[in-house]
Amino acid sequence: MPDNSSDIGRFRVIRTDGSARAGELSTAHGTVKTPVFMPVGTQGSVKSLCPRDLKEIHASIILGNTYHLYLRPGDELLADMGGLGSFMGWDRPVLTDSGGFQIFSLADLRVITPDGVRFSSHIDGSRHFFTPEKVISIQNNIGSSIMMVLDECVPYGADHEYTARSLKLTTEWAARSRAFYPPGSGRQLLFGIVQGGFFHDLRKESALRITEIPFDGYALGGLSVGEPKEQMLETMYHSAPLLPAVKPRYLMGVGKPLDILEGINAGIDMFDCVLPTRNARNGTLYTSLGQVNIKRAEYKRDESPLDPACGCYTCSNFSRSYLRHLYMARELLAYRLNSIHNLHYFVGLASLARQAVLENQFQNLLGQYRQIYAPDSYQV
Amino acid sequence: MPDNSSDIGRFRVIRTDGSARAGELSTAHGTVKTPVFMPVGTQGSVKSLCPRDLKEIHASIILGNTYHLYLRPGDELLADMGGLGSFMGWDRPVLTDSGGFQIFSLADLRVITPDGVRFSSHIDGSRHFFTPEKVISIQNNIGSSIMMVLDECVPYGADHEYTARSLKLTTEWAARSRAFYPPGSGRQLLFGIVQGGFFHDLRKESALRITEIPFDGYALGGLSVGEPKEQMLETMYHSAPLLPAVKPRYLMGVGKPLDILEGINAGIDMFDCVLPTRNARNGTLYTSLGQVNIKRAEYKRDESPLDPACGCYTCSNFSRSYLRHLYMARELLAYRLNSIHNLHYFVGLASLARQAVLENQFQNLLGQYRQIYAPDSYQV
Repeated sequence: MPDNSSDIGRFRVIRTDGSARAGELSTAHGTVKTPVFMPVGTQGSVKSLCPRDLKEIHASIILGNTYHLYLRPGDELLADMGGLGSFMGWDRPVLTDSGGFQIFSLADLRVITPDGVRFSSHIDGSRHFFTPEKVISIQNNIGSSIMMVLDECVPYGADHEYTARSLKLTTEWAARSRAFYPPGSGRQLLFGIVQGGFFHDLRKESALRITEIPFDGYALGGLSVGEPKEQMLETMYHSAPLLPAVKPRYLMGVGKPLDILEGINAGIDMFDCVLPTRNARNGTLYTSLGQVNIKRAEYKRDESPLDPACGCYTCSNFSRSYLRHLYMARELLAYRLNSIHNLHYFVGLASLARQAVLENQFQNLLGQYRQIYAPDSYQV
Repeated sequence: MPDNSSDIGRFRVIRTDGSARAGELSTAHGTVKTPVFMPVGTQGSVKSLCPRDLKEIHASIILGNTYHLYLRPGDELLADMGGLGSFMGWDRPVLTDSGGFQIFSLADLRVITPDGVRFSSHIDGSRHFFTPEKVISIQNNIGSSIMMVLDECVPYGADHEYTARSLKLTTEWAARSRAFYPPGSGRQLLFGIVQGGFFHDLRKESALRITEIPFDGYALGGLSVGEPKEQMLETMYHSAPLLPAVKPRYLMGVGKPLDILEGINAGIDMFDCVLPTRNARNGTLYTSLGQVNIKRAEYKRDESPLDPACGCYTCSNFSRSYLRHLYMARELLAYRLNSIHNLHYFVGLASLARQAVLENQFQNLLGQYRQIYAPDSYQV
């Protein structure tokens, strides 16, 4: 249900457990309970899944990629079709990224100028120019519930000097974005993004500058870009508390199940990652007992469900033996059944964390998952 | 619901309208109302669809390919898993072909001997030998509701002499199949196959010899193998009346929507074809107004459903514009949404024909579809 206009953008922290929070974010397309995991629907579908599948795995918000949607089918077409949600038959909230990450990871011939970034489409080589204002306009056309500002996602290994210079640009672009779409000018929310690489002083500087701008939420960008896990977690734990407690905090593009719980432990509310769907297509599945590689010969005649503790459509109806066969035969159904399970796991994990926070049991939950995934993992 | 043991194999013609019939065939896995279209689930899934999808398009029986299932996951594995239905989560009837057609169209290095056919797997080149008895054993392991005998599918263009010789072998194999699995020896039905190429005398000879053997149903094989449409229909109209009226008649591997109605007009009860699923994956979709190529630019901003007269999940929820986008972007969801629609159309067409027979309106229905698909089509 769409929330009342007056409520749009309201974020309520209902309960905290240490730094972990259980909250509710109101958007024009409904309320999102946090912590939340957002399945990634790159170009108008969460790969292989229909909206009914998404509701059955209890997804409450999905992510769309502005770069992809701008190139195909085009944001003007989406506007004509009533926005992305209407186009794809999804009546719950959608968050769109700014396209920045894809420009820096997918597009060719990119050139950054103070005004914006020039790039060539990875599909047909056509030339495009994104400015902070342009990506807001595109996201206006897409009609997402939550928009992200254009930023430069600094490559891993960038030095202090480069990162500091980039951060200045990202801050200017954030200010221009907010000026172009001032608070209250529409029904879409706008989030700012903190960069700063893996330098504490720059993360602090970026958080200071970005949180001066009145955004509806704040994200940590530039993590999970190739750095060692410890460095990601260390930077995340350092940066999360720099974001205002009264606004939703979003850790972009992270991560594995344990990373998500570590993020929640640091006070993060929102997550997205292509891992569950990409791994589904690679046959890597997440279960209550850890990762399963469904290709393995040991599952050839295994009549048990993928995860006996899971209630998803896949685990309720099919055996490991069947899932292995579909995968080995490269049947299209393999990708769907695997994606349903993995997303059910990730979305469910965030819900589980929320419930644990509400019951003051979050540290127990985190401890359990540290056991499952990384007995010797990074400890705070 | 499984039928009572005593009913298995019973075929009742409830009503006729000209040569067209409405009937009911009892199998160990439930009753099939005829005329019926059987979606093809080559290797343990109807491509991109789950059993729930199949039930929603009202599929009452599906087809499995013995050749594919024997190679992967293997018929012994299927037996251990309780049969194909249990393996893939499908609790309605399944018909398995004999593998003959695939050996002659897919496998390498095939050598026909009086005893059987030797071939190499198209997957890994491994050598195999199928006899009439062996393919019954394989289908026993698969646990299908209806089994087909091994036959030689004569290539299009074979002359009278070759076809006559092949027919003799096919007849011997049919007799050996029935001897190996005598009537009443199990809960699976066994159908014979009439061959004879495009020669009236040989079709007649084959029908005479095959129907002497007490099968539970009789099929026409060797059609839709590359011949002109007129020749297919002419041979079909000639051969169908040669099959006993008291048994189900199955036209193998045919065909397009109008072909199916022509088949029903000739007295055929059962159909299968890869066309709806293969064309779904090529973007060719069947609608109440004829074929739609969803790739066409004219659909780019078309907000209407694919077929306004269709009640399938795809047409109830998505626009042509969205389906075109998914197809152009090669999203996995395109194949599923298109397959749901096309199969709903084919399964529904057979149901529509059944209803028309029951209401003595079949000629009207046939006339309408001759208008839609081939205003100048073959007339009987």
